[in-house]
Amino acid sequence: MAGIVASSVRAGDKVCVVVSAMGDTTDELLDLARSINPRPPERELDMLLTSGERIAGALLCMALDTLGIKARSYTGSQAGIITDRSHGRAKIVDIKPTRVIEAIDRGEVAVVAGYQGVATDTKDVTTLGRGGSDTTAVALAAALGSDVCEIYTDVEGVFTADPRIVPDATKLSVLTYDEMLEMASSGAKVLMARCVEYAKNRSVKIHVRSSFDHSPGTWIVAEEESMERAIVSGIAHDISEAKVTLVGVPDRPGIAATLFRALADENLNVDMIVQNVSAEGKTDISFTVSRDDANRAAEVVERVAHAIGAAGYDVDQGIGKVSLVGAGMRSHPGVAAQMFEVLAKAGINIEMISTSPIRISCVMREDAVANAVRELHNAFHLELAESEDRLRIAQELNERYDE
Amino acid sequence: MAGIVASSVRAGDKVCVVVSAMGDTTDELLDLARSINPRPPERELDMLLTSGERIAGALLCMALDTLGIKARSYTGSQAGIITDRSHGRAKIVDIKPTRVIEAIDRGEVAVVAGYQGVATDTKDVTTLGRGGSDTTAVALAAALGSDVCEIYTDVEGVFTADPRIVPDATKLSVLTYDEMLEMASSGAKVLMARCVEYAKNRSVKIHVRSSFDHSPGTWIVAEEESMERAIVSGIAHDISEAKVTLVGVPDRPGIAATLFRALADENLNVDMIVQNVSAEGKTDISFTVSRDDANRAAEVVERVAHAIGAAGYDVDQGIGKVSLVGAGMRSHPGVAAQMFEVLAKAGINIEMISTSPIRISCVMREDAVANAVRELHNAFHLELAESEDRLRIAQELNERYDE
Repeated sequence: MAGIVASSVRAGDKVCVVVSAMGDTTDELLDLARSINPRPPERELDMLLTSGERIAGALLCMALDTLGIKARSYTGSQAGIITDRSHGRAKIVDIKPTRVIEAIDRGEVAVVAGYQGVATDTKDVTTLGRGGSDTTAVALAAALGSDVCEIYTDVEGVFTADPRIVPDATKLSVLTYDEMLEMASSGAKVLMARCVEYAKNRSVKIHVRSSFDHSPGTWIVAEEESMERAIVSGIAHDISEAKVTLVGVPDRPGIAATLFRALADENLNVDMIVQNVSAEGKTDISFTVSRDDANRAAEVVERVAHAIGAAGYDVDQGIGKVSLVGAGMRSHPGVAAQMFEVLAKAGINIEMISTSPIRISCVMREDAVANAVRELHNAFHLELAESEDRLRIAQELNERYDE
Repeated sequence: MAGIVASSVRAGDKVCVVVSAMGDTTDELLDLARSINPRPPERELDMLLTSGERIAGALLCMALDTLGIKARSYTGSQAGIITDRSHGRAKIVDIKPTRVIEAIDRGEVAVVAGYQGVATDTKDVTTLGRGGSDTTAVALAAALGSDVCEIYTDVEGVFTADPRIVPDATKLSVLTYDEMLEMASSGAKVLMARCVEYAKNRSVKIHVRSSFDHSPGTWIVAEEESMERAIVSGIAHDISEAKVTLVGVPDRPGIAATLFRALADENLNVDMIVQNVSAEGKTDISFTVSRDDANRAAEVVERVAHAIGAAGYDVDQGIGKVSLVGAGMRSHPGVAAQMFEVLAKAGINIEMISTSPIRISCVMREDAVANAVRELHNAFHLELAESEDRLRIAQELNERYDE
């Protein structure tokens, strides 16, 4: 990382770097905490976990020093990352990067610990949750008026599908914020949805690229008038969710509200929700949650089931979700039908469906996911997904920002 | 540690705990830093090292939570430990423990990361240097008006001599601040001198005791009128110093000033200084410094030697220092003579001597140190060092403060 930063500085850039914790540091600290207390207090967990990025930042500054580059590390708090007080999943409410700006004005590289901030009222240290370092980077890029937020990762960019499943998946050179948002919320690991959302709202250009080679990665930018809309840009899949189904629920107003309010009060993030057509005044409600949250969701459902008069409930850990994403879907209504046909021909049963204007997601058995991704990649010719005008936009961005 | 804290809380005490880093954390972080940069920038080193205490504090709170004890961890900065900006050896200039007091008032245990603070002007994180966590503890005890600052360590208390060298060394039940100060600055490892000095200046009672058993340790308190003054309370030794000698120095005013100003400007701590009687207008000046600093001291001497007209200099890494400490020495002028006789009889050559009103230190070959300590312990009957009235004082303190 020090080498990458040094070459940017030598090219004349003013640089602010946001670091995440090294390797498995966060997991190791988490294990340490749980070995002491299976349910560690959230405030203390945040105090513990934030040391990972602090260590990485100080070490990066030391490495830059050996290259003759002046650098200073800052904690999230010192960098003015102000959040709400939700430990473990705090939201950034303000950025006051006074010290970061002063460092950059002095000609120094400002190195900021990602994933963390300080609560506006309690002054306690908070963490932003998964993907928090990317969010810190985008938020700081916006606050500093940066040209580009480069996100260095262990892959070369965003691919049309997971290359471990689809060998001829290709790297996408440009995606719109909305496409990346849908990819991220459908299971693409490379960026978290909240980070993309922040970038979209503040118009921060993101360049996702590899830490290990210097070739251009994937640009995430606003949709341009001239941009040809790919019908399908990429396929995301997600095998980290579980499906919870309440059966025999009376079909009355307010039932869904009671259920999902109870889940929200426990801070459980629900992804898809499907309610079947009512038969004889009874209906089934299914929703998906992260598998990590499945037990807590089951506890809530257990509690609520009786109150809303459900006949019972079921938790299914064996599902997977496959999503097609593309800005061009808006004007091509046949995409969903074609997706269902491809899956049917492959003998794959669809258990839940949800759609957005630029995405179609199907829930299926987990063991059908890899085959579904391959069949869809093939059927929609995603190995040829990139249009001429997208390649041209990427080339312009690379020439302008990448020395 | 959580068990010890919990039993204090259950006994009705309001508790503030200062933690140091666990095990070898600090050394491991230091190794990590040096593997990246042999001379890491001090500010970044402080950012790195302070994570050790932060981790320990968060984990202690999690452990207390499992025992049903409410606790909150604070960094030095959050606890209001304000220091100057000398990274790696910062001095506490103020304590503003607002958040600590609020936590204690809420009935919580306040857990504070030791060894660290925040610089009053730059707002950068600083470390207090060796023994810094003890200093944090004493400083907070003073600021909070605590009854006692208990320092839990891996030994049972302060001994008449190092028990690894003298098998019948006995644990001292009480020492005065001045005695402990001399012991600490003469090589006794159990407490650092600056911590004792702070305690003396603020009249904070210290109780040094073992983390591993609950028996009373050693009390460090102000000298009382009634307290019988032991002629010799203990023997400290130190094999961590090196001796630097400038030979053939012109015996002119200002020579010593030039030398020691140059050493002070490099932040080198000089311990003993001895200047021999002048012969033919030339003299020798010897001083001792920490062996870690010997190379830097040699560089300074190399630079200064020519300017002050010295014939040459020598660095001797093979020395050791043995010190007798006792408040009663003030009124017993024969102690020094007896010490020299004991060493002479053992065939040990004395290379440097320095004294304070309650201490006599002799520098000798390093390999003579263990024998010197044993012979002196025996000759001064230190296995019987504790007087009746000291034992009585200790008993009163234990009954009053140790449930």
